[in-house]
Amino acid sequence: MQVYDTTLRDGAQREAISYSVVDKLAVARLLDEFGVGFIEGGWPGAMPKDTEFFRRARTELDLKHAVFVAFGSTRKAGVRVQDDPQVRALLEAETPAVTLVAKSDLRHVERALRTTAEENLAMVRDTVAYFVSEGRRVFLDCEHFFDGYRFDPDYTAGVAAAALEAGAEAAVMCDTNGGMLPSLITRTVGEVRERLAVALGVTPEEAVARLGIHCQNDTSCAVANTVAAVEAGVPHFQCTANGYGERPGNADLFAVVGNLQLKLGMPVLPDGCIEQMVRVSHSIAEIANIAPDTHQAYVGSSAFAHKAGLHASAIKVDPVLYNHIDPVVVGNDMRILVTEMAGRASIELKARELGVDLAGHPEALTRVTNRVKELEARGWSFEAADASFELLARAELAEGALPRPFALESYRVIVEHREDGAVVSEATVKVRVRGERVIATAEGNGPVNALDEALRVALARHYPELARFELADYKVRILEGSHGTGAITRVLVETRSTGEDWTTVGVHENVVEASWQALVDALSYGIAHQVRV
Amino acid sequence: MQVYDTTLRDGAQREAISYSVVDKLAVARLLDEFGVGFIEGGWPGAMPKDTEFFRRARTELDLKHAVFVAFGSTRKAGVRVQDDPQVRALLEAETPAVTLVAKSDLRHVERALRTTAEENLAMVRDTVAYFVSEGRRVFLDCEHFFDGYRFDPDYTAGVAAAALEAGAEAAVMCDTNGGMLPSLITRTVGEVRERLAVALGVTPEEAVARLGIHCQNDTSCAVANTVAAVEAGVPHFQCTANGYGERPGNADLFAVVGNLQLKLGMPVLPDGCIEQMVRVSHSIAEIANIAPDTHQAYVGSSAFAHKAGLHASAIKVDPVLYNHIDPVVVGNDMRILVTEMAGRASIELKARELGVDLAGHPEALTRVTNRVKELEARGWSFEAADASFELLARAELAEGALPRPFALESYRVIVEHREDGAVVSEATVKVRVRGERVIATAEGNGPVNALDEALRVALARHYPELARFELADYKVRILEGSHGTGAITRVLVETRSTGEDWTTVGVHENVVEASWQALVDALSYGIAHQVRV
Repeated sequence: MQVYDTTLRDGAQREAISYSVVDKLAVARLLDEFGVGFIEGGWPGAMPKDTEFFRRARTELDLKHAVFVAFGSTRKAGVRVQDDPQVRALLEAETPAVTLVAKSDLRHVERALRTTAEENLAMVRDTVAYFVSEGRRVFLDCEHFFDGYRFDPDYTAGVAAAALEAGAEAAVMCDTNGGMLPSLITRTVGEVRERLAVALGVTPEEAVARLGIHCQNDTSCAVANTVAAVEAGVPHFQCTANGYGERPGNADLFAVVGNLQLKLGMPVLPDGCIEQMVRVSHSIAEIANIAPDTHQAYVGSSAFAHKAGLHASAIKVDPVLYNHIDPVVVGNDMRILVTEMAGRASIELKARELGVDLAGHPEALTRVTNRVKELEARGWSFEAADASFELLARAELAEGALPRPFALESYRVIVEHREDGAVVSEATVKVRVRGERVIATAEGNGPVNALDEALRVALARHYPELARFELADYKVRILEGSHGTGAITRVLVETRSTGEDWTTVGVHENVVEASWQALVDALSYGIAHQVRV
Repeated sequence: MQVYDTTLRDGAQREAISYSVVDKLAVARLLDEFGVGFIEGGWPGAMPKDTEFFRRARTELDLKHAVFVAFGSTRKAGVRVQDDPQVRALLEAETPAVTLVAKSDLRHVERALRTTAEENLAMVRDTVAYFVSEGRRVFLDCEHFFDGYRFDPDYTAGVAAAALEAGAEAAVMCDTNGGMLPSLITRTVGEVRERLAVALGVTPEEAVARLGIHCQNDTSCAVANTVAAVEAGVPHFQCTANGYGERPGNADLFAVVGNLQLKLGMPVLPDGCIEQMVRVSHSIAEIANIAPDTHQAYVGSSAFAHKAGLHASAIKVDPVLYNHIDPVVVGNDMRILVTEMAGRASIELKARELGVDLAGHPEALTRVTNRVKELEARGWSFEAADASFELLARAELAEGALPRPFALESYRVIVEHREDGAVVSEATVKVRVRGERVIATAEGNGPVNALDEALRVALARHYPELARFELADYKVRILEGSHGTGAITRVLVETRSTGEDWTTVGVHENVVEASWQALVDALSYGIAHQVRV
C-alpha cells in the first residue's frame, strides 16, 4: 500500500492557500510524522518558490517514513527530453522519486496540448525512461483518466501501459474533473485491470497492483471513490491533508486512512502514527491559515460531539454503541465526555514532549489543564504554539518557571496616514527590566513592527542576544463566530535564532494587543532558552 | 423515487443551529421549491417550538411538491399506543405522513431502552398499525440499523419486517453512527433484500422497493453511501440541505440529488427544480446562519473555480472538458480566478462575469491586465476579491468608472495599553465628501474597527445606506519573501448588505493601511452598487 500525499502540490491549489518555504518544510515534517509513504513537495521549475523549497529540503528535511517526491510534466512536444528545461529543473530537485503528469484524454491531447496521439505517447515513454535511467522512481499521473477512458478507452489505457512499459512504478488514474462515483470507479478499475493485463502480458492481479488513484471531490465522493479503488486492488492512493485542493478539493487523507485502516483493517500507516491524526490535521490547518473544519470526519472537534441530555448517561456507559470508532484511536475525544482525565493525559504528554515533567506534579498538572481549557474557550490555540504552551506549563511548576525578562508598564502605538500619502508608525513602550524603568520609542513600517522595535531598543542593553532573534513569520486569524473588525483576533508569531525556531500565540479583540502578547512570549521564551543553553 | 428531506428535524441537530418557527416555515418553502417529495418538519410533542410550527404550517404552508411529515417515536414500553402522550402529539400534528423511530439494534433495545426484544417488536407493530388506521402514511426509521445488523441480523431485519407487515410504506435503514462505506452498504442491502423477501413472501425486487436509507457522514461517505443504496434498488433516501446534522452531519441533499440525476440519469426532481440548487442551498445557509461552504460540491462558490493563466484560453474554448457538469444546470457559474499567471484572456473572461465588457475595449483591457500584474507582483490578490477587481476594471473604462464616494486627506490611529491594563483604540479621519471637509473620531475595539467606525461617522450623513453594510469577515495574510513584522500584509474584507456580499483587498507593509485600503474599496463598491440598483 502506498500512501501518497500531495498536500504541498495539488492541495496548494486551494484558493487562498499560499505557503512560504518555511510553511512547506513544517507541513512536510507533520506529514512524515503521520507516516505517509510519499510526500509530493511541489513543481520545481514551474514555481520559483518550489525550487527553493527543494533546495532547502535536501539539508533541512530528515524524513523518517516518507519518500520525497518532485512533480513535473512529461517533455514538451517536439523537444528532446534532455533539452526540456522543465525536465532539467525536475532532475535538479534531486528527489528519490518523481511524478510526471501526462494527458490521457485524447481530446485534451489534441485540443489543449495541440499535439498528436502518438507524440503524446512518445512524450510519456521518453520522459519516464529518462528519469528511470537517472535512477529515479517514477509515477505517472494520467490526467483526466476517467473522462478520457469513457471517450476512448483504448487510448487512455494505452497511456498508462506506455508509462508502465517504460519503467514507471505506477500509473495513477486521476479523476481530474472529479465527476466519478464509487460504482463507476469499481467498474472502470475492473476493465482497466483486464486491458493492462493483456497489454503488459501479466495477470490481472499484477496489472491492478501497478495502478494508482487520485480523486477530486466534485461529487462529494472523493473519499469513497479512493476507498473503492483500493478495495478493487489499487495499492497507490493520492490524497491531501483535510482534502485541501482546487474546487471542492481532493480526497481527504485523514478520512481515507481512517476508513482503510479502521473500517477495512488494512494496515496503511506505520504503528503509532494514526494517533497523530488530529494533531497533524489541525497543525496543517493552522499553517495553511484555514480554520479547521469542526465537522470534518474523524478529526473535527465536533466529529464525536454528542448532544448531551437524555442519552448522556447511556453514552457514558456504552460509548462504543454511540461512536463509529473509539475517538482516542485518532487522537480525538468524545466531546460530552471531555473529562478532566482525557484533558490531563494529553496535556501531560504534550508537556513531556517539550521537556517539562508534569507527571510527578499532579496539582501543577491540574492547574495547567484548567488554564489551557480556560484560554482555549477564549480563542487561544496551543496546537501550533509550543513555546507559549511551554511558558504556561513551566509557570505552574514552582521549580520550572522561566523568569520573565521584563514587565510591561504601558505602550502606545500611533499609525498616521499623512496628507502627503506617507504612512508612518511609531511605538513607545515603558517597561521594567531588572529593576530599571526603561522608556523607548521606535518607528516601524507597521504598528507591530514599531512595537517590536521599541521593545528591542528597551531591552537591548540587558539582553544583547535579542539581536540574533528574527521574526520569521506572523499569522493573523480572525476567529469565527464573531463579527468583522470587532472580532477576536489570534496572532501566531514564529521567531528564529541560530538553529532553532519557536512559535508563540496571542489572542485579543485588538490585533495590536494580540500581537504584543505573542511578541512578549516570543522574546521571553528565546531569552530563557538562550540563557539555559 | 422518494426524496425525503430531514433538514428541519435531524439537520437541526447540528451544533449552533437554532431555527425560529418563521425560519422553519421559510426553509420548508425553499425545500418545496427545490422539489423534494417529503419534508420532515420536526418532532411535535418533544419540542414545544415544533408543536407550534406544525400548527402554523397547516394554514401558512402551501406545498407544491412535498408531502409534509411529522417525526415521533414508537410507543413507550408497557403503554397502550393510544395512551402515549407523545403518540397523541404526533397525531395532532395532522400531517399526511408520519415517521416513527424505533431501535433496531438489540443492544440498544436492552441497554438504552431497557426492554425486551419482543416488546420492542410489539411497539413497532402497534404504533405503525395505529397510525395506518388513522389514515396516515407511515415510515419507520430503524435506528442503528447497520451496526445492529452486524450484531444480530435476524433481529434487525425482523424490526424492518414487523413495520412493513404492520403497514409501513418503507423501513428506513439508518446508519446512525455513520460508520459505513459504500461497499458495506451494497452488501448489507443485498442481504436484507433477500431476508425481507422471505419474511414478507414477496420477490427480492418487491422487498428492496420497500426500504429507505439514512446516512450520517462520519466516514466522509454519507453521499456515496446514499447513492450506493439507491443503486442497489432502495427508492427512499433521507438527506439534509448542505449535509447539516450532528457530528460530521448527514448526507447532503444537493450532492445526492446532483449525483443521482446528473451522473446516473435518474429523474429524482420535478422538471425545472434542479436549477434552484445553488439558490436554495445558499438561502438555507443564510437562514441557519452558517456561512455557505465555498468548497461544497455542486453549490459552493468555488465548486467550478479554475485558476486562470496558461489554460484560460483552453477552458474558454472547451469548458465541457474542464467541468464535471455544466454549472448552469444547478444554477452555479464557472469562476475564473485571477492569479499571478493571469493573461488577457482570463482578465477579459473575469470582467465579463462581473458585467464589465472589456472585449470591445482592447486598450482598456491592456491597461487592466498590466495594472493587475503590477499589483499582483506587489502582493495583491484578486482571486477572492471580485469587488476590488471590478472597481479596478471599471476605473480603466472611461464610461464605466464608478465614482469614488469620498477622498482621504489623512487619518491617525492610536492604540494604547495603559498602566491599568486597559487597551484602547481611537481613530481620527479627515475626508472630503461631496465638496465638504469632514473630520470624525471614533473608538473601536481594535485599530481597524476604530478606523471603520470613524469613517462611517464621517460619511453617515451623505450615505445613510452605509448603516446596512456589515463587516462580515476580515482576513489577514502576511506575504512571504518578506520578514516578520516588517512583512507585506494582505487584508481581505468581506462586507454584507441585504442580499449581497462582496470582498475587497488591500496590501501594504502596514496592516492598518492595508485594512484601510480594503475598507475604502468595500464602502466604495457598496455605495456605487446601492446607487446603481
